[in-house]
Amino acid sequence: MHKRIDHIVVRVADLDKSLEDYEGKLGLKRREDPVEQPEIGLRRAILPLGDSGNFIELAEPLGEGAIANSLAKNGEGLHLVALEVDDLEAAKAEMTANGARLIQAGRMVFVHPRDGHGVMYQLVQRD
Amino acid sequence: MHKRIDHIVVRVADLDKSLEDYEGKLGLKRREDPVEQPEIGLRRAILPLGDSGNFIELAEPLGEGAIANSLAKNGEGLHLVALEVDDLEAAKAEMTANGARLIQAGRMVFVHPRDGHGVMYQLVQRD
Repeated sequence: MHKRIDHIVVRVADLDKSLEDYEGKLGLKRREDPVEQPEIGLRRAILPLGDSGNFIELAEPLGEGAIANSLAKNGEGLHLVALEVDDLEAAKAEMTANGARLIQAGRMVFVHPRDGHGVMYQLVQRD
Repeated sequence: MHKRIDHIVVRVADLDKSLEDYEGKLGLKRREDPVEQPEIGLRRAILPLGDSGNFIELAEPLGEGAIANSLAKNGEGLHLVALEVDDLEAAKAEMTANGARLIQAGRMVFVHPRDGHGVMYQLVQRD
Protein backbone atom coordinates (compact mmCIF):
# COMPACT_ATOMS: atom_id res chain seq x y z
CA MET A 1 0.00 0.00 0.00
CA HIS A 2 2.62 2.57 1.12
CA LYS A 3 5.42 3.25 -1.35
CA ARG A 4 7.52 6.10 -0.01
CA ILE A 5 7.63 9.60 1.43
CA ASP A 6 6.60 11.90 -1.42
CA HIS A 7 6.99 15.41 0.00
CA ILE A 8 6.57 17.55 3.09
CA VAL A 9 4.78 20.86 3.51
CA VAL A 10 6.28 23.44 5.87
CA ARG A 11 4.02 26.21 7.15
CA VAL A 12 5.77 29.60 7.16
CA ALA A 13 4.84 33.15 8.13
CA ASP A 14 6.66 34.82 5.26
CA LEU A 15 7.32 32.82 2.11
CA ASP A 16 9.97 35.15 0.73
CA LYS A 17 11.93 35.18 3.98
CA SER A 18 11.76 31.39 4.30
CA LEU A 19 12.90 30.99 0.69
CA GLU A 20 15.93 33.14 1.52
CA ASP A 21 16.87 30.66 4.27
CA TYR A 22 16.04 27.45 2.37
CA GLU A 23 17.90 28.62 -0.74
CA GLY A 24 20.62 30.72 0.82
CA LYS A 25 21.51 28.59 3.86
CA LEU A 26 20.21 25.08 3.15
CA GLY A 27 21.22 25.16 -0.52
CA LEU A 28 17.88 24.15 -2.05
CA LYS A 29 16.55 25.82 -5.20
CA ARG A 30 12.97 26.70 -6.08
CA ARG A 31 11.46 24.94 -9.10
CA GLU A 32 9.68 28.13 -10.12
CA ASP A 33 8.62 31.42 -8.59
CA PRO A 34 5.98 31.32 -5.81
CA VAL A 35 2.43 30.47 -6.88
CA GLU A 36 -0.81 31.63 -5.24
CA GLN A 37 -3.47 29.02 -4.57
CA PRO A 38 -6.32 31.04 -3.06
CA GLU A 39 -8.70 28.05 -3.40
CA ILE A 40 -6.75 26.27 -0.66
CA GLY A 41 -5.69 29.42 1.19
CA LEU A 42 -1.97 29.52 0.52
CA ARG A 43 0.93 30.89 -1.46
CA ARG A 44 3.63 28.31 -2.02
CA ALA A 45 7.03 27.47 -3.43
CA ILE A 46 8.36 24.01 -4.35
CA LEU A 47 11.97 23.03 -3.63
CA PRO A 48 12.88 19.74 -5.37
CA LEU A 49 15.40 17.34 -3.80
CA GLY A 50 17.74 16.15 -6.53
CA ASP A 51 15.95 14.08 -9.17
CA SER A 52 14.11 11.94 -6.62
CA GLY A 53 10.70 13.49 -7.24
CA ASN A 54 10.71 14.40 -3.53
CA PHE A 55 10.24 18.04 -2.62
CA ILE A 56 9.82 20.46 0.24
CA GLU A 57 6.86 22.80 -0.17
CA LEU A 58 6.92 26.08 1.73
CA ALA A 59 3.39 27.40 2.30
CA GLU A 60 2.35 30.83 3.59
CA PRO A 61 -1.28 31.60 4.43
CA LEU A 62 -3.30 33.47 1.83
CA GLY A 63 -6.54 34.48 3.53
CA GLU A 64 -8.44 31.95 5.65
CA GLY A 65 -7.80 28.24 5.70
CA ALA A 66 -6.00 25.35 7.35
CA ILE A 67 -2.54 26.91 6.95
CA ALA A 68 -3.64 30.23 8.51
CA ASN A 69 -5.31 28.42 11.41
CA SER A 70 -2.32 26.17 12.09
CA LEU A 71 0.13 29.06 11.83
CA ALA A 72 -1.89 31.09 14.37
CA LYS A 73 -2.13 28.10 16.71
CA ASN A 74 1.25 26.38 16.33
CA GLY A 75 3.59 28.80 14.58
CA GLU A 76 5.92 27.84 11.77
CA GLY A 77 6.74 24.17 11.32
CA LEU A 78 5.74 20.96 9.63
CA HIS A 79 2.24 21.10 8.19
CA LEU A 80 2.08 17.60 6.70
CA VAL A 81 4.01 14.63 5.37
CA ALA A 82 2.69 13.25 2.07
CA LEU A 83 3.03 9.49 1.61
CA GLU A 84 2.79 7.95 -1.82
CA VAL A 85 0.45 4.97 -2.08
CA ASP A 86 -0.03 2.54 -4.98
CA ASP A 87 -3.77 3.05 -5.18
CA LEU A 88 -5.44 5.94 -3.38
CA GLU A 89 -8.95 4.48 -3.41
CA ALA A 90 -7.74 1.13 -2.08
CA ALA A 91 -5.66 2.85 0.63
CA LYS A 92 -8.66 4.95 1.70
CA ALA A 93 -10.89 1.87 1.87
CA GLU A 94 -8.32 -0.15 3.84
CA MET A 95 -7.56 2.62 6.34
CA THR A 96 -11.21 3.47 6.86
CA ALA A 97 -11.95 -0.22 7.50
CA ASN A 98 -9.10 -0.20 10.04
CA GLY A 99 -10.68 2.72 11.92
CA ALA A 100 -8.40 5.53 10.73
CA ARG A 101 -9.96 8.98 10.59
CA LEU A 102 -9.52 10.27 7.04
CA ILE A 103 -10.25 13.84 5.97
CA GLN A 104 -11.32 14.41 2.38
CA ALA A 105 -10.85 17.97 1.07
CA GLY A 106 -11.74 18.11 -2.60
CA ARG A 107 -9.51 15.49 -4.24
CA MET A 108 -7.02 15.57 -1.36
CA VAL A 109 -7.01 12.89 1.35
CA PHE A 110 -5.47 13.36 4.78
CA VAL A 111 -5.07 11.16 7.86
CA HIS A 112 -6.14 12.95 11.03
CA PRO A 113 -3.11 13.99 13.13
CA ARG A 114 -4.55 12.18 16.12
CA ASP A 115 -3.98 8.86 14.31
CA GLY A 116 -0.52 10.08 13.26
CA HIS A 117 0.35 11.05 16.86
CA GLY A 118 0.79 14.71 16.04
CA VAL A 119 1.71 14.33 12.36
CA MET A 120 -0.84 14.93 9.61
CA TYR A 121 -0.27 12.64 6.65
CA GLN A 122 -1.57 13.25 3.15
CA LEU A 123 -2.02 10.24 0.86
CA VAL A 124 -1.04 10.78 -2.77
CA GLN A 125 -1.06 8.58 -5.84
CA ARG A 126 1.39 9.37 -8.66
CA ASP A 127 0.84 8.07 -12.16
CA MET B 1 23.97 18.10 -2.68
CA HIS B 2 20.46 17.06 -1.60
CA LYS B 3 19.23 13.71 -2.94
CA ARG B 4 15.90 12.95 -1.31
CA ILE B 5 13.88 12.68 1.88
CA ASP B 6 15.32 9.68 3.74
CA HIS B 7 13.07 9.29 6.79
CA ILE B 8 11.13 11.16 9.43
CA VAL B 9 11.17 10.75 13.21
CA VAL B 10 7.91 11.15 15.11
CA ARG B 11 8.10 11.88 18.84
CA VAL B 12 5.53 9.88 20.81
CA ALA B 13 4.56 9.55 24.46
CA ASP B 14 3.95 5.81 24.37
CA LEU B 15 5.69 3.76 21.68
CA ASP B 16 3.47 0.71 22.06
CA LYS B 17 0.29 2.74 21.75
CA SER B 18 1.57 4.66 18.73
CA LEU B 19 2.62 1.37 17.08
CA GLU B 20 -0.95 0.14 17.55
CA ASP B 21 -2.19 3.14 15.55
CA TYR B 22 0.52 3.16 12.88
CA GLU B 23 0.20 -0.59 12.29
CA GLY B 24 -3.48 -1.08 13.02
CA LYS B 25 -4.96 2.03 11.42
CA LEU B 26 -2.35 3.33 8.96
CA GLY B 27 -1.35 -0.13 7.76
CA LEU B 28 2.41 0.15 8.27
CA LYS B 29 4.47 -2.72 9.69
CA ARG B 30 7.45 -2.58 12.04
CA ARG B 31 10.77 -3.87 10.69
CA GLU B 32 11.58 -5.43 14.05
CA ASP B 33 10.52 -5.11 17.67
CA PRO B 34 11.25 -1.83 19.48
CA VAL B 35 14.88 -1.14 20.32
CA GLU B 36 16.23 0.87 23.25
CA GLN B 37 18.92 3.46 22.51
CA PRO B 38 19.73 4.89 25.95
CA GLU B 39 22.82 6.67 24.55
CA ILE B 40 20.53 9.04 22.64
CA GLY B 41 17.66 8.92 25.16
CA LEU B 42 15.02 7.02 23.24
CA ARG B 43 13.21 3.78 22.53
CA ARG B 44 12.27 3.43 18.88
CA ALA B 45 10.56 1.41 16.20
CA ILE B 46 11.17 1.60 12.44
CA LEU B 47 8.28 1.34 9.97
CA PRO B 48 9.58 0.93 6.38
CA LEU B 49 7.63 2.37 3.42
CA GLY B 50 7.55 -0.25 0.67
CA ASP B 51 11.01 -1.01 -0.71
CA SER B 52 11.95 2.66 -1.06
CA GLY B 53 14.40 2.69 1.83
CA ASN B 54 12.24 5.44 3.36
CA PHE B 55 10.89 4.87 6.83
CA ILE B 56 8.97 6.42 9.67
CA GLU B 57 10.70 6.14 13.04
CA LEU B 58 8.55 6.36 16.17
CA ALA B 59 10.60 7.52 19.15
CA GLU B 60 9.60 7.56 22.82
CA PRO B 61 11.79 9.22 25.46
CA LEU B 62 14.04 6.95 27.50
CA GLY B 63 15.41 9.09 30.31
CA GLU B 64 16.72 12.58 29.58
CA GLY B 65 17.48 13.94 26.15
CA ALA B 66 16.24 15.89 23.15
CA ILE B 67 13.15 13.71 22.66
CA ALA B 68 12.10 14.03 26.32
CA ASN B 69 12.60 17.81 26.24
CA SER B 70 10.67 18.26 23.00
CA LEU B 71 7.85 16.00 24.15
CA ALA B 72 7.48 17.99 27.37
CA LYS B 73 7.53 21.29 25.48
CA ASN B 74 5.65 20.50 22.27
CA GLY B 75 3.84 17.20 22.78
CA GLU B 76 3.72 14.43 20.21
CA GLY B 77 4.57 15.27 16.61
CA LEU B 78 7.32 15.53 14.07
CA HIS B 79 10.78 15.49 15.64
CA LEU B 80 12.86 15.74 12.48
CA VAL B 81 13.03 15.17 8.74
CA ALA B 82 16.20 13.43 7.54
CA LEU B 83 17.48 14.48 4.12
CA GLU B 84 19.91 12.31 2.24
CA VAL B 85 22.93 14.14 0.84
CA ASP B 86 25.61 12.87 -1.56
CA ASP B 87 28.49 13.80 0.70
CA LEU B 88 27.91 14.70 4.34
CA GLU B 89 31.22 16.50 4.85
CA ALA B 90 30.76 18.58 1.70
CA ALA B 91 27.16 19.42 2.67
CA LYS B 92 28.30 20.51 6.15
CA ALA B 93 31.03 22.71 4.71
CA GLU B 94 28.72 24.30 2.15
CA MET B 95 25.90 24.99 4.60
CA THR B 96 28.25 26.35 7.25
CA ALA B 97 29.79 28.67 4.64
CA ASN B 98 26.26 29.79 3.76
CA GLY B 99 25.56 30.73 7.40
CA ALA B 100 23.35 27.76 8.37
CA ARG B 101 23.47 26.77 12.03
CA LEU B 102 24.44 23.10 12.16
CA ILE B 103 24.33 20.99 15.30
CA GLN B 104 26.75 18.09 15.58
CA ALA B 105 25.80 15.36 18.07
CA GLY B 106 28.27 12.51 17.89
CA ARG B 107 28.24 11.46 14.23
CA MET B 108 24.81 12.97 13.63
CA VAL B 109 24.38 16.36 11.94
CA PHE B 110 21.27 18.52 12.27
CA VAL B 111 20.19 21.87 10.86
CA HIS B 112 18.83 24.17 13.55
CA PRO B 113 15.03 24.43 13.35
CA ARG B 114 15.31 28.21 13.15
CA ASP B 115 16.91 27.87 9.71
CA GLY B 116 14.27 25.26 8.79
CA HIS B 117 11.45 27.59 9.92
CA GLY B 118 10.23 25.24 12.62
CA VAL B 119 11.46 21.98 11.07
CA MET B 120 14.65 20.31 12.29
CA TYR B 121 16.49 18.56 9.46
CA GLN B 122 19.04 15.83 9.90
CA LEU B 123 21.59 15.30 7.13
CA VAL B 124 22.44 11.68 6.33
CA GLN B 125 24.74 10.01 3.86
CA ARG B 126 23.96 6.46 2.72
CA ASP B 127 26.58 4.25 1.17
